[in-house]
Amino acid sequence: MTTSATPTLDRISGPADLRALSDADLTRLADELRQEVIEAVSRTGGHLGSSLGVVELTVALHAVFNTPADKLIWDVGHQCYPHKILTGRRAQMGSLRQGGGISGFTKRSESDFDPFGAAHSSTSISAALGFVMGRELGRPTGDAIAVIGDGSITAGMAYEAMNHAGDLRKRLFVILNDNEMSIAPPVGAMSQYLERLGEALPLATLKQVADGVEAVLPDRLREGARRARRLVTGMPGGATLFEELGFTYIGPVNGHDMPELLATLRAARARAEGPVLVHVQTVKGKGYAPAEAAPDKYHGVGKFDVATGQLAASKSNAPSYTTVFGTTLTDEAARDSDIVAVTAAMPSGTGLDIMAARFPARVFDVGIAEQHGVTFAAAMAATGLKPFVAIYSTFLQRGYDQIVHDVALQGLPVRFAIDRAGLVGQDGATHAGVFDIAFLANLPGFTVMAAADEADLMHMVATAVAHDEGPIAFRYPRGEGRGVEMPARGAVLPIGKGRVMREGTDVAILSLGAHLAECLAAADLLAAEGISATVADARFARPLDTDLIGQLVDHHGALITVEQGATGGFGAQVLHHLANGGALDRGLAIRTITLPDRFIEQASPAQMYADAGMTAADIARIAAAASPRRSGGARG
Amino acid sequence: MTTSATPTLDRISGPADLRALSDADLTRLADELRQEVIEAVSRTGGHLGSSLGVVELTVALHAVFNTPADKLIWDVGHQCYPHKILTGRRAQMGSLRQGGGISGFTKRSESDFDPFGAAHSSTSISAALGFVMGRELGRPTGDAIAVIGDGSITAGMAYEAMNHAGDLRKRLFVILNDNEMSIAPPVGAMSQYLERLGEALPLATLKQVADGVEAVLPDRLREGARRARRLVTGMPGGATLFEELGFTYIGPVNGHDMPELLATLRAARARAEGPVLVHVQTVKGKGYAPAEAAPDKYHGVGKFDVATGQLAASKSNAPSYTTVFGTTLTDEAARDSDIVAVTAAMPSGTGLDIMAARFPARVFDVGIAEQHGVTFAAAMAATGLKPFVAIYSTFLQRGYDQIVHDVALQGLPVRFAIDRAGLVGQDGATHAGVFDIAFLANLPGFTVMAAADEADLMHMVATAVAHDEGPIAFRYPRGEGRGVEMPARGAVLPIGKGRVMREGTDVAILSLGAHLAECLAAADLLAAEGISATVADARFARPLDTDLIGQLVDHHGALITVEQGATGGFGAQVLHHLANGGALDRGLAIRTITLPDRFIEQASPAQMYADAGMTAADIARIAAAASPRRSGGARG
Repeated sequence: MTTSATPTLDRISGPADLRALSDADLTRLADELRQEVIEAVSRTGGHLGSSLGVVELTVALHAVFNTPADKLIWDVGHQCYPHKILTGRRAQMGSLRQGGGISGFTKRSESDFDPFGAAHSSTSISAALGFVMGRELGRPTGDAIAVIGDGSITAGMAYEAMNHAGDLRKRLFVILNDNEMSIAPPVGAMSQYLERLGEALPLATLKQVADGVEAVLPDRLREGARRARRLVTGMPGGATLFEELGFTYIGPVNGHDMPELLATLRAARARAEGPVLVHVQTVKGKGYAPAEAAPDKYHGVGKFDVATGQLAASKSNAPSYTTVFGTTLTDEAARDSDIVAVTAAMPSGTGLDIMAARFPARVFDVGIAEQHGVTFAAAMAATGLKPFVAIYSTFLQRGYDQIVHDVALQGLPVRFAIDRAGLVGQDGATHAGVFDIAFLANLPGFTVMAAADEADLMHMVATAVAHDEGPIAFRYPRGEGRGVEMPARGAVLPIGKGRVMREGTDVAILSLGAHLAECLAAADLLAAEGISATVADARFARPLDTDLIGQLVDHHGALITVEQGATGGFGAQVLHHLANGGALDRGLAIRTITLPDRFIEQASPAQMYADAGMTAADIARIAAAASPRRSGGARG
Repeated sequence: MTTSATPTLDRISGPADLRALSDADLTRLADELRQEVIEAVSRTGGHLGSSLGVVELTVALHAVFNTPADKLIWDVGHQCYPHKILTGRRAQMGSLRQGGGISGFTKRSESDFDPFGAAHSSTSISAALGFVMGRELGRPTGDAIAVIGDGSITAGMAYEAMNHAGDLRKRLFVILNDNEMSIAPPVGAMSQYLERLGEALPLATLKQVADGVEAVLPDRLREGARRARRLVTGMPGGATLFEELGFTYIGPVNGHDMPELLATLRAARARAEGPVLVHVQTVKGKGYAPAEAAPDKYHGVGKFDVATGQLAASKSNAPSYTTVFGTTLTDEAARDSDIVAVTAAMPSGTGLDIMAARFPARVFDVGIAEQHGVTFAAAMAATGLKPFVAIYSTFLQRGYDQIVHDVALQGLPVRFAIDRAGLVGQDGATHAGVFDIAFLANLPGFTVMAAADEADLMHMVATAVAHDEGPIAFRYPRGEGRGVEMPARGAVLPIGKGRVMREGTDVAILSLGAHLAECLAAADLLAAEGISATVADARFARPLDTDLIGQLVDHHGALITVEQGATGGFGAQVLHHLANGGALDRGLAIRTITLPDRFIEQASPAQMYADAGMTAADIARIAAAASPRRSGGARG
């Protein structure tokens, strides 16, 4: 009979059990929970570092607050693994981020302990405030607690929420999880400010204040913290930025010192009347040496060996689209000093770290600030620079109004590099890049491209560099390229021109973007059925290649459009064009293969596209059904 | 020979002339400019109050900075009338906001003195920072000056920009135009903070500091202001929020005291090294008693009599859609205590002031914070409340990611009341509500409605109250209703069901929303040509009324969809449905009438729709051309 390595954790079936533990047992629980997280993530991969940073905080929050009646909202949600383990999902951790398994983020449909799901950053304070006002208006809701990182709190949305909370003055808890490290090292004046706050108050000082805290008024707590800060900085009596926004500021607190955390949270819970911000300092990757040493690398990891920290080898042969973008743009930037680039807190995720290493003054990390980033780039374009804004498709939604109002309306030549277009795999529906074609392809003056492979991406970067007439965007998927032969340098593509990849006679498949390979495979399947398919790569969702479309319509009995995006996008633009030109009057079997009208749950990208009904076989089936030569037998 | 009332202004053909004037003449110029603005707006209508508030500031900025080499960026841009008069557009002021005339906002295509156009708020600091980095990277650009109001600076986007500017530490000027009044009285902790800052420092105190300021270092200026604030508040030595974000803070300055303004701006220009914020206190409507007394009423006005302040009588007979929404929601809220409402700094613009008057605790003005407002509402929906988010179509673009990520993905029943849908008249392309159908109609689980008239709007409010299954949106246009008979109370509509308004045999016109009357008029025109048209009101862009569409297709030779929106919206969804169901295989003359693929310039809404090719005659012409019974002669 083996002895469990996690005897305390084994006794916990939910937060209610945890509240029966002594403080000493809670500390033990945290230690076991940390090991459990490391073991679990070593088997599945996932967001390790941020979860390790909040182990004690997770235990303390569930011990002090009455979840799920109290609403605990994790900003972004990728630090929620300890929370999931404590809230009834321990046994499912092996399925984390897998098809059919539990999500890597918080998710309402998964647990009552996830009152508001997340994945995009900086929504938690807004959500917590909504729960607070629900309570104030009589809904059965307890306290609301937002846990937000020092990176996420720099986003405008978090500031908007604090500004509103400070105005409403209702009881609300914001836990600032300050690890001086979002995904990348943080940027911005706010992060420097937090750093100064942190330096100003040694953790030991607060301990005095927090000890035996049930008896301590929040005012005294606050005054104590202020006094301590004053002692250290010599800056007498200044309110913190959070106090200026109407919050009671408590902290900083050592986020890995369980007694200090418990005392502080208990005091805050006992006494808070209005909005309270508890500033907790944590270490990303805490307690696992490889993750502490390389927090960027261990932010999101694949499987790894716990003992050595060795990451499982990637099976990658082809370079990733991200790397191709980063290296190509860097090469172009070496030739053209007007090229600059903007990222919203994702330098390595977007590949702009490659350009930043060579041209640091020309790459701007604006922080989690897509709204600002887009308009900032628009003004740089107005000066004659050539700005590339590299933002994942799903996050570009944050800058949509700025794309319309500041870029499209003014016709400014901002270049949008849209990574993670289409379905993205383990990060699931919240990270899928589904809507960008639709929300860009109806903007007057925009040019919208989608890369079929990594060589095409090189051409599109070159095309965007050369295109000074107005805004231009190009999208490409997550992950590895197709392994195609790469040119020495990208060529400037003719705007609005597609290309025929395979000539056929019966049915035409018009692909936009990275589903081209599946379309070509579908043509093979069709050929086996005796149906001859033309396959074309549209390359441009806007302007449409109307010559190419006309030829396809004229010479085939059916036309199938295929795109890795929602309705209202490329297929819709083709339909508008054909309908209004009268091309449908005489009859045309046209089908638009898009992502379906539902959100697709996490799995591998291939599984997700299968779930979406977009495999080569699906395309062939739809094309065959539409084709006038449907019955292969009739041909013989 | 008459003597000009504006002898100084008459000598100014551009800012260069103005820089040759003495300080005393600049004061005279400001007085004349104020009268000129009042006279001009009395004849055209427009944004009077905000323009009057910045008369001295406009003169001082152009006198001190070297525009257009220096980039002066007015946030929102509706306060730019004095700026337009001084920058060569005085003679065109009579055409302000008229078809073919000059814009009511700044606009790049109009003048070199408008380096970055605006109309949506809070973009100016991002834009100014873009120009600054253009300069730093060698582009021919001088200083950059953003002028932003105390309302606009509360938006998250402005905070994001300040955060980035504080990090970059480059020379940049932000003028905070603090009139304690955006359109509505400001909300939020930030506005209370600014008020405290303003109270802390009597204007007279700064005057001492600013006098003879060429000799004064910015550090001394700042220290003086800080000292003064300290004297008044007893709060020793605290840095302002702006200083904490890395800005040098100067102020507050009396924005109507020309010598003080000039001295302060000259000092700032002479000495600034990094980002500087100059806090200028102004009075909205300054110098025109009726506007000072009622700044809300005179924010945007029609024509008025200068002597009396009497506004020209409105010709309105029917109630505005906005009022119908506000009163209907208030009635519903009286019956259902779970109804709450959210506005982003537009309580009277959205009609929520009506509900706020009766149920103040249930209406939330979140400030200019669409991102926060949407997610805040989503969480209230999660508590079981029934939140109505009332935001103009064009501003809803600011909350797009939150609509996708927090509302649609979680299926939360947030109700979106989308005012100013379609073309909006004098505010022009920046305010047109063009894209909402397209960006909502492909979101899984959403219900999207458009009101054909003000009675239908009542039904849609009632429908949204009753619809708890997921998110629901309804759009309606700017301005007066059609004068239709109003029900005592809105009825709950069957979800996804349209209605046939007129039965015909040859061609079917399927209208979504407020263009229904034009469609009915088109049917009359067609009848005169011997073509019999069915006209149906789809009511729902999502889910589609597939039964109705099927009947229209089965029984007519042509189908014309009509919507006040861009491509990719309702017509596109109809096309997707028909194409993928095989309904187009056998031939169907289908046309999608949408807003065209260009931005439509300001004019009356009717003129704008004519420009867009969407008059009844246009619809009839397109329907007739598509109809198999095209030649009326063939019928006889």
